[in-house]
Amino acid sequence: MKPEMIMNAAGRMVPKTINGIEHPAYQGVAKFKPSGHRAAPRISTCGDYPADGNKLVGDLKTALKKCGLKNGMTISNHHHFRNGDLVMNKVFDAAAELEVKDLRWFPSASFPCQAPIIEHLKSGVIHHIEGSMNGPLGAYCSTGKMKGMAVLRSHGGRYQAVQDGEVKIDIAIIAAPTADSFGNATGDQGPSACGSLGFALADSEYAEKVIVITDNLVEFPCLPWQINGNRVDYVVELDKVGDPSKIVSGTTQITKSPDRLLIAEYAARFVEEAGIVKDGFSFQAGAGGTALSFAIYLREIMLEKKIKARFIRGGSTQHLVKMLEDGLTDYILDGQTFDLAGVESLRDNPRHVSTSPFTSYNYHGKGNFASLVDATVLGATEVDINFNANVVTHSDGRLLHGIGGWQNCLFSKCTILPIPCFRDRIPVIVDKVTTLCGPGELIDVVITERGIAINPLRQDLMDKMHGSSLPIVDIHDLQAEVEDICGGKPQPPKTGDKVVAAIKWVDGTIIDCVKSVGGN
Amino acid sequence: MKPEMIMNAAGRMVPKTINGIEHPAYQGVAKFKPSGHRAAPRISTCGDYPADGNKLVGDLKTALKKCGLKNGMTISNHHHFRNGDLVMNKVFDAAAELEVKDLRWFPSASFPCQAPIIEHLKSGVIHHIEGSMNGPLGAYCSTGKMKGMAVLRSHGGRYQAVQDGEVKIDIAIIAAPTADSFGNATGDQGPSACGSLGFALADSEYAEKVIVITDNLVEFPCLPWQINGNRVDYVVELDKVGDPSKIVSGTTQITKSPDRLLIAEYAARFVEEAGIVKDGFSFQAGAGGTALSFAIYLREIMLEKKIKARFIRGGSTQHLVKMLEDGLTDYILDGQTFDLAGVESLRDNPRHVSTSPFTSYNYHGKGNFASLVDATVLGATEVDINFNANVVTHSDGRLLHGIGGWQNCLFSKCTILPIPCFRDRIPVIVDKVTTLCGPGELIDVVITERGIAINPLRQDLMDKMHGSSLPIVDIHDLQAEVEDICGGKPQPPKTGDKVVAAIKWVDGTIIDCVKSVGGN
Repeated sequence: MKPEMIMNAAGRMVPKTINGIEHPAYQGVAKFKPSGHRAAPRISTCGDYPADGNKLVGDLKTALKKCGLKNGMTISNHHHFRNGDLVMNKVFDAAAELEVKDLRWFPSASFPCQAPIIEHLKSGVIHHIEGSMNGPLGAYCSTGKMKGMAVLRSHGGRYQAVQDGEVKIDIAIIAAPTADSFGNATGDQGPSACGSLGFALADSEYAEKVIVITDNLVEFPCLPWQINGNRVDYVVELDKVGDPSKIVSGTTQITKSPDRLLIAEYAARFVEEAGIVKDGFSFQAGAGGTALSFAIYLREIMLEKKIKARFIRGGSTQHLVKMLEDGLTDYILDGQTFDLAGVESLRDNPRHVSTSPFTSYNYHGKGNFASLVDATVLGATEVDINFNANVVTHSDGRLLHGIGGWQNCLFSKCTILPIPCFRDRIPVIVDKVTTLCGPGELIDVVITERGIAINPLRQDLMDKMHGSSLPIVDIHDLQAEVEDICGGKPQPPKTGDKVVAAIKWVDGTIIDCVKSVGGN
Repeated sequence: MKPEMIMNAAGRMVPKTINGIEHPAYQGVAKFKPSGHRAAPRISTCGDYPADGNKLVGDLKTALKKCGLKNGMTISNHHHFRNGDLVMNKVFDAAAELEVKDLRWFPSASFPCQAPIIEHLKSGVIHHIEGSMNGPLGAYCSTGKMKGMAVLRSHGGRYQAVQDGEVKIDIAIIAAPTADSFGNATGDQGPSACGSLGFALADSEYAEKVIVITDNLVEFPCLPWQINGNRVDYVVELDKVGDPSKIVSGTTQITKSPDRLLIAEYAARFVEEAGIVKDGFSFQAGAGGTALSFAIYLREIMLEKKIKARFIRGGSTQHLVKMLEDGLTDYILDGQTFDLAGVESLRDNPRHVSTSPFTSYNYHGKGNFASLVDATVLGATEVDINFNANVVTHSDGRLLHGIGGWQNCLFSKCTILPIPCFRDRIPVIVDKVTTLCGPGELIDVVITERGIAINPLRQDLMDKMHGSSLPIVDIHDLQAEVEDICGGKPQPPKTGDKVVAAIKWVDGTIIDCVKSVGGN
């Protein structure tokens, strides 16, 4: 039962329906105008909740039963525990014991630690996953064996989908490093501290039923209440909700690769020469090795020129925290913390502020923070000669990464992709990306170890870099050089016919899809 | 065109309709079960908002026009500026200049400084007010001259009404002591600092259009963003949004009346003897003279017995702040700040935490904070022998006060009304309250200078106070004694036929109504 395919505004063939439901095709940047109303969960009443505020129930299975778990429901969770999550495998084991089938799993992202859930996909407990799939679950999805079609959304797109009623969450599971029995919950304290719980905000606001699961129950009030207990139905205590060593690392690593270091340095020099680095500016750089190194180079420039940023957007790390502490920025506006220094700073420094996919990224809000950022540094698995980029599939076509905040960040005033020219001798600059995740018109600069390509749409940046000592090149020349080195263009991936995943744009339209690969 | 009247579960005749719309009659405490879904505002898109986040428009009138102001719309505002508000008169003057009619004004409360708005009620710019009316606007409403029927709601009831879609706000006006051009706003800084902006939360979440008005524009990001800019359409700068001397007072006054002091002392001794004052307990006391004095007496008891509260619920004052600073409580959970010490503490002390009508009071949530409070001390204009109480009308029938958080606080574990036996030689303890605002079953203790009456429903409290040195009395005996002193029962108010205001219960049902009085 293959879905009908249509061509969207980016020239990609995409399914008209996902798991039997119609979804609009991508229409271009800022072209799709939503017409509906926000999701409207059922009205609750305090009369149905304990007057003393104690919502504790004995165990997870009891909580799921009380929530009315049944076939076909949607179960959501956040991924702030990353690869240290100890909750979701238990949730689906409990669901299997309760003999429910065809659940939709709606995580903000899934990780290798959740690979056991493949068994629940095989047995039919879970019908399909909508959410980023890092590693084994993505690989499984790529084989085409999942019953339903996966849907990948950005962090902002996930908020949008919930807010707009595109995804109705029946039961939200919110694993919380600290909580009280009323359901107030925070991520910045406790043995499983992860920093923020922002990815669970939409879930708490719009799910019909919300279960908070914690291993650190404190007396009311748990503060800060990153999650409001007023939105929570049940609280469950577990011995251990996360593995701290896999939730956060003590330190975050800067790249040691000479090529990556060069790319990072180019990126820092680029934003300086383009006049972006000035008092009151802002930037976002993730926790990857190149991005971290970019921040370190930028720090040197800022120190030398006595420049202070107004804000830095996290994912925060010890390196950003140090910039805050050294007075190089007024604020860190943080969506997730990647190391212990980040968690501690978020908890203790009032200038290290928690943000959410709603404030930062939701495209169906009255503006969001992403477009206010002066420069954003992002990764990509592939870029094409029209600056379109891929972030979810490898050149072999396998779906191994999530979108994260990547699509949302493209709206910054200057979006820079510092990437290597090739990986494993396969060119990264291609004629056409395997999977389109970000439209080229939003990607301003591609920075490689062999040259910097500026999007011709950004004549202003071209002008600013005129006469620069940096190696400014045409992307076609860069591509040719790389193909020379690698012995030609990369082989297109050998994909099957089955659409295994739809890729959503920030506005809920389908920008591309992923086909099955081999059977591995 | 009089509305049809029916008798509700409290035995009160109430209108079936308010301004032509049906509303359910009161059915008893925790009896009404809501069946609908939450309000669902239209979905926005960032594509319709400036990418640089700058939502500033030149003036108020322009903002109102851009919001599509037209006849019959609902305009809301918060009352954190209290009697120092300099914005709302300007808003309705602008509306009058724009020649719109029949607006519904939906403030969280109105104050004497807004008396000029009576002209707009007379001219038909405003059809009616839904919100607490303190002073002249209440007096005007009482005359029966307002075109529509007023509706009074508690703070929690106002949130409930907006959340449930009972009141759809077309344009929310959010006067903000500090804001950025994106619309992030806070009340804890700036020349017009008022502390929290919690009363505007529902407005920001559910209004179709939101205008932030400030006299202290700061660079993005304005922190804390008590109001999310992501919910704001336009930002307007005014020279002065509030008169600081009328927003907060430098000091909050303890009563000097010997009778009130005695009542406050009785109240403090009562909660001590009833075993409520123990480590980890919680209480709420407002900013009135008696409530403040209660807190002072309680402080002495806590110091003497080395007892620490887990939290104190504000309205905060210098007295509560001192208790926090002296380590007599872990937290102040604060809905509004009544003096400068409160504002400063809320801003600077992480243990002084802002709450909202959503977290504290919304009855149509999954629980709220009010029912978790061990003891709450509240005022009343009248109490009857069944412990029913009135807080909005005087014995002459005139509507001169709002409900505030009063109804919501009745859900505390021990609700105490410390009130004088009579005012102006008119008994406060009556056969039947002029206006029913709170059902007797939720009012546990009435404390007067002539004795303490415990609600017979609270046999547990009766038992605890057995043998107490405090003057525990039967409420009938107290009433008889007061009538002796005052020379008989109070005269019932001389009211007309017209229903000028409906009084909502916390769940949106009509618990009582107010009739017109004289023509003054």
